[in-house]
Order: sequence, then C-alpha cells, then structure tokens
Amino acid sequence: MKENALGLVKAQEFTFAGSGEGFKLECGESFSPVTLAYEAYGQLNRDKTNAILIAHALSGDAHAAGLADGENRAGWWDNMIGPGKAFDTDKYFIICSNVLGGCRGSSGPSSINPKTRKPYGLSFPSVTIRDMVNAQKELIDYLGIDKLLSVAGGSMGGMQVLTWLAAYPGRLQSAIPIATTLKHSPQQIAFNEVGRQAIIADPCWRNGDYYGSAPPAKGLSLARMIGHITYMSDQSMEKKFGRIKKKDARPFKFTADFEVEGYLHYRGGNFVKRFDANSYLYISKAMDNFNLLDGRTLQGLFKGVKARLLVIAFKSDWLYPSYQSKEIIKAAKLAGLESTYCEVDSTYGHDAFLLETKEETHLIRHFLKKVFYSIQVR
Amino acid sequence: MKENALGLVKAQEFTFAGSGEGFKLECGESFSPVTLAYEAYGQLNRDKTNAILIAHALSGDAHAAGLADGENRAGWWDNMIGPGKAFDTDKYFIICSNVLGGCRGSSGPSSINPKTRKPYGLSFPSVTIRDMVNAQKELIDYLGIDKLLSVAGGSMGGMQVLTWLAAYPGRLQSAIPIATTLKHSPQQIAFNEVGRQAIIADPCWRNGDYYGSAPPAKGLSLARMIGHITYMSDQSMEKKFGRIKKKDARPFKFTADFEVEGYLHYRGGNFVKRFDANSYLYISKAMDNFNLLDGRTLQGLFKGVKARLLVIAFKSDWLYPSYQSKEIIKAAKLAGLESTYCEVDSTYGHDAFLLETKEETHLIRHFLKKVFYSIQVR
Repeated sequence: MKENALGLVKAQEFTFAGSGEGFKLECGESFSPVTLAYEAYGQLNRDKTNAILIAHALSGDAHAAGLADGENRAGWWDNMIGPGKAFDTDKYFIICSNVLGGCRGSSGPSSINPKTRKPYGLSFPSVTIRDMVNAQKELIDYLGIDKLLSVAGGSMGGMQVLTWLAAYPGRLQSAIPIATTLKHSPQQIAFNEVGRQAIIADPCWRNGDYYGSAPPAKGLSLARMIGHITYMSDQSMEKKFGRIKKKDARPFKFTADFEVEGYLHYRGGNFVKRFDANSYLYISKAMDNFNLLDGRTLQGLFKGVKARLLVIAFKSDWLYPSYQSKEIIKAAKLAGLESTYCEVDSTYGHDAFLLETKEETHLIRHFLKKVFYSIQVR
Repeated sequence: MKENALGLVKAQEFTFAGSGEGFKLECGESFSPVTLAYEAYGQLNRDKTNAILIAHALSGDAHAAGLADGENRAGWWDNMIGPGKAFDTDKYFIICSNVLGGCRGSSGPSSINPKTRKPYGLSFPSVTIRDMVNAQKELIDYLGIDKLLSVAGGSMGGMQVLTWLAAYPGRLQSAIPIATTLKHSPQQIAFNEVGRQAIIADPCWRNGDYYGSAPPAKGLSLARMIGHITYMSDQSMEKKFGRIKKKDARPFKFTADFEVEGYLHYRGGNFVKRFDANSYLYISKAMDNFNLLDGRTLQGLFKGVKARLLVIAFKSDWLYPSYQSKEIIKAAKLAGLESTYCEVDSTYGHDAFLLETKEETHLIRHFLKKVFYSIQVR
C-alpha cells in the first residue's frame, strides 16, 4: 500500500427525498430520491465552524484525498488536502461530494430509476451548476453545519464556489474560486460541444441507452483527448513531449507516431474505464449553461455578500484565461467584498490548479488561517 | 453571377510520370503518374520573371482566386489575388496547385488507381510537405519557369514556402511564409490527431475503403469542428457569437443550443461536401511530420540562400503562435538573408491570414514591388 497520511478513506452516501414532490431542479422538473456520494476528512469541531466544502471539476469525484478503500488510489487533490497541507485536516473538516448528474456514486444518468429498475439514461432530468450546489446544501444541512468556513474548487468546481457565494452567502465565511469563470465563453462551449458530438456520433451511444451493452468508448475517449489538450499548455506539451517519436511507432501511416499522440490515446482509454459518457454530456452541458451574470449586473452580483474571497488564476491557462478571474475580482470589489487575487506563474496550463500546489498551498493556507482566526476573535 | 475582376477561371491539369520508375517520394515509394490540378491568373511575361506560386493550407485547393467555372464560387484567397490586389494579376503571373495527396483534382487517396481501376484509399503512399513541393517543382519546370518571383502561403502553405526556400533556393527570388512554423509542435500534432481519430472512429471509414458507399461524414465533420475552434480566437468567438442562443434551440438537452454550436455544425457539415476524409488523414499527417530542423541547425538551415524573406504572423493566432514565426526570422538572420518580420495586430486568430487582408495587402504589395524592381535593375 502507498504511504498516505490520511490512510484509507471510505465514501459515504447521503440520500434525501426533497420537500413535497421531490428535489426541485432549475429545469422545472422534480427528482427524488437524490443520492450524493461524499467523503470527509478531519474532525468537525464542537462549534461546527471548521468545515470546508471542496467542489470538483468535470471529471472529478468525491474522492478528493486519502486512499480510496479497496482501490488504493490517491484522491484527485490529495496533494492539497491532508495533515499540514493547504486544506489542513489537523485543523479543518473537509467535505467533498460527487456532483448531481455524476457517475461516481451520486444520482446521475447511469443510476437506476427505482420506478423502472433500469438506468435513467437520457430520461435523467437536465441539471445545472445551481442544482449541484442546491444538492450540496442539503448535504451541509444534514451534517448540521450552519456556516461553512470555506467553499473551494477549480474549473467547474470554481463555478460551484461562485454559485454558493451568490446563492447562499449567509452559509459561508469565505470562498476560493480557482481557474474559473462567471460564465462559459463561446470557445469553452465549443470545445465541450465537440466532445459531446464525439460521444453522440459513436454508434454505441444509442441515444444514451447503452447500459448493459458496449458503452460509447471511442466517443468518450475522443472527448477526453480534446479535453486533455485544453488542460495543458503549448509550453507544457513542448516540455513533456516535444516531437519525440513513440518507441513502438510503426511505419503504418495513421497509428500514434508521436509520444503526445500515445499519451492522449492512453488518457482517453483510461477515462472510459471510470467515467460514464452520459454524465459527460450532462455535466459539460451544465458548464456551458453556466452564466452567473444572466439577468444580473457585475455590480449587483455579490451585493450584500459578507464572505471573504481568494481568487486564483494561472498564467498559462488558456482554457480559463486570467481575464475571467479578474472579472470575478471586479464583481467582488464592486460589492465591497474583502478579496484577494493572485495570478500564479505556471506553465502547466489549466491543469495548474491540480499541479502547481506549492504556491497554491501557500496562498490557501494563509487565507484560511486568517478567515478562521477572524471568526474566533469575533 | 457575382462581380469578380478575374471572372470565371478554369482549373487545368498537369500530369507527369516522374523519371525512371516514377515520382520518388520521401517514404521511399515511387508513384506514377502524378496529376496536379492548378489554376493560373495574369500573364507570364516574356522573361518569365513575374511568376508567383501560391501554396494552400490543409483544406484549400487550386482555386485561389476568381470564380470557379460552373460553381460561381470565389477562390479561397480571392481578396488577395487579382487586378490591383496584393498579388496583382496586372503585374504578376499567379499559379496555385492542389497539393499532392489532396482531393480537389490532384492525385490523392480518392484518385483512381489505374492498375486496379478503384480509388487508392489507404494504398496511396504517405506524402510529406517535401513531396508536395517536389511535385510543384515539376509543374514549375513544365511551365518553363526557371526562377519564381515568390512563393507565398499561410499555415501549411507556409510550410511549403519554407521547404521551397530550403530545398530549391536557386528557384525563387523571395518567399512569404505566413502564420506558419519550422516544425509542428506537440500541441499542433495533438489537435490533428484528435481530428484523425474522429475520422478513424467513424464506422463508415472502413479502414479508408468507403468510396462508393457512405463516407465517414460524422468523423470528418468533427475533425473540421475541432479545426475551426483552433482557427478562431477566444476574442473573435466572443465577438461573433457571445452566449447567444440559437433561434431554433429546443429544450432537448443535447442539440445545439448556442449559436457557436450551430456554426460549428454548419461548417462541419459543409466541409464534408467538398473534402475527402482520407485526404484529411494524409495531409494532416504530412503537417505533423513537418520538421525543417530535423537533422539541421537553425544556423545551417538557410545557409547560402539568397532569396528575400517576408515573414508574417498574427497577434491572436494561438494555433501558429508568433514565436514560431520569430524562429523563422532568426534562422534567416543567422544565414544573412534580407528578411522582414511583421506581427499584424488582429483578433481573428489563425484565420487572420485569410481575413486580415488590409494590412497583409500593404505588406505583400510593397515587398513584391521591391523584389521585382531589384531583379529588373540587376
């Protein structure tokens, strides 16, 4: 077994019915019951003031840290969450749940519809970032936490953070949106749409009704390959791959000749083993529909919000460029929020929020310490 | 009929056998006969000193200017080629040929193999940028032109320009590589590879043997969609589409909701009507294999070359970023070439070489005038 300070962690499940006719979604439909898979690390203090919610990105899950029980696999943000780390489990109680619409334990298109005893497929209602956050709020209520010390996350996780801030400002002391945006841009939508069309074009997709037969593996793999290019940077690809040829490159014309091609094939193929194609469609669509400014002005967006804000962007991130993070800070400053912006120097591209942990740790550790101290002396 | 100063133009064909056992390709195979479709505009002068070769990009063809006979369709660089335009047909004789491996009249995988009377498909030998240029040289020989006034082109066209410069420096007075590179980077390879895999994953592709049945339209359309995203810029997409919803957007979750999605679908669908999927595989692979520095140093690349050079890059072009053009200029300066570099301010992204014609015209017109003048006074 690998060394890991948190050791084995076990996913938990929280299922709720929603009030009255079920859990109300933004699309107008109701849904019940809703299950969220979640993990928690560290101890909730007596006053329940040290809880931090971590929100994951498109392909993430509840397993943010420690080793997954049975799989011996480290969490996706394990280098940031644990004893003495940025999200210090010696001080804080950390919660991470799989998003609504996901495929890693939470209710999503691959879940069994209790009425039909078959997977929902495309009969699963469409979900939004706000729906994901509303479901997380049910979990936080259930855990008896009145006010989160912070909500943090990168990429789509950051969209959830911003939604918490706008929708439930009274429920958090601070927020840490990383490498994210107030609204998805046409370029961001375009890349997602090509990924979706790759899935839909795969004959195995069968209009979403592929459970029990071969999944649309080629389409999902292609979507992931496109994603990976956008998560890296021109520079990081140059450094990692250059024009190095694959050792087993064959003279046949259309196999993977270059290491960069082999890497993309490998990452695409791996993704298919752990992710559901329909969830990819639902979640990427939720990202594209995300527009916190819809019907609101930049001035009005965070009006009256009291939480503190730490906004982090990365220099080589061209998928979520820093001007989008500056827009968040602008909205915060217009509303008089106590807010800090940092653009971290990195060549990792969008992946930097997962990899550029040294500077990220420094920023987050001090920010959380200050926020936690301020509520204790109040 | 549309107004067009050049009026109707007719594609011509040049077929050659190659010497001895055929036209020798870089892969080691020989091929014969080779056909190149080409168009020509303007008049070749008596001394044959006013000929300019235009090289096209991945999806281009020989129809660079004027209206295609029968189709009433303007050429892909019609705004740059014609009377009084950047490539002034009142002064110069302009030639453009479809590349070897293409599908618009030149020999390529969709051509009929005279031995089998069936399309070559994947039995077509693999081609390189150098092979394309070698075939163009046969055409220039055939036209009796000893020395081209210039060779010009953007993107993959620019790779051909640079190859001419390195391989046949005695055959040109000047070269104009635009928005291009000395070698394909891993990011550029990666985008092409995803496009290729989209074609290959399409069950209609049938290992390239789809002629006479339904072509891999979905795969090719996807490849083109990915391409289009990389040809535009974040800024130009924001300006053109924003987050505007399609008028006919339906509440169904996975149709095109946003105009940017509709645009990509439209462009993808249109491309399928005029392009062959196998040609896309062959030509994109030729681009990926392009590395003029393979086995050469930057210092040695243009050693002894006497041609003049105009290198143009565009500010928002992130697919062929300006640092790649600066590398070309560096190689030219190291070899003592008379060379000029200009980075044009544009928000169009890589497409700028087709769209940012005002400044491009200014630069090219003056450059050509100077080169033409210098050979006349010599």
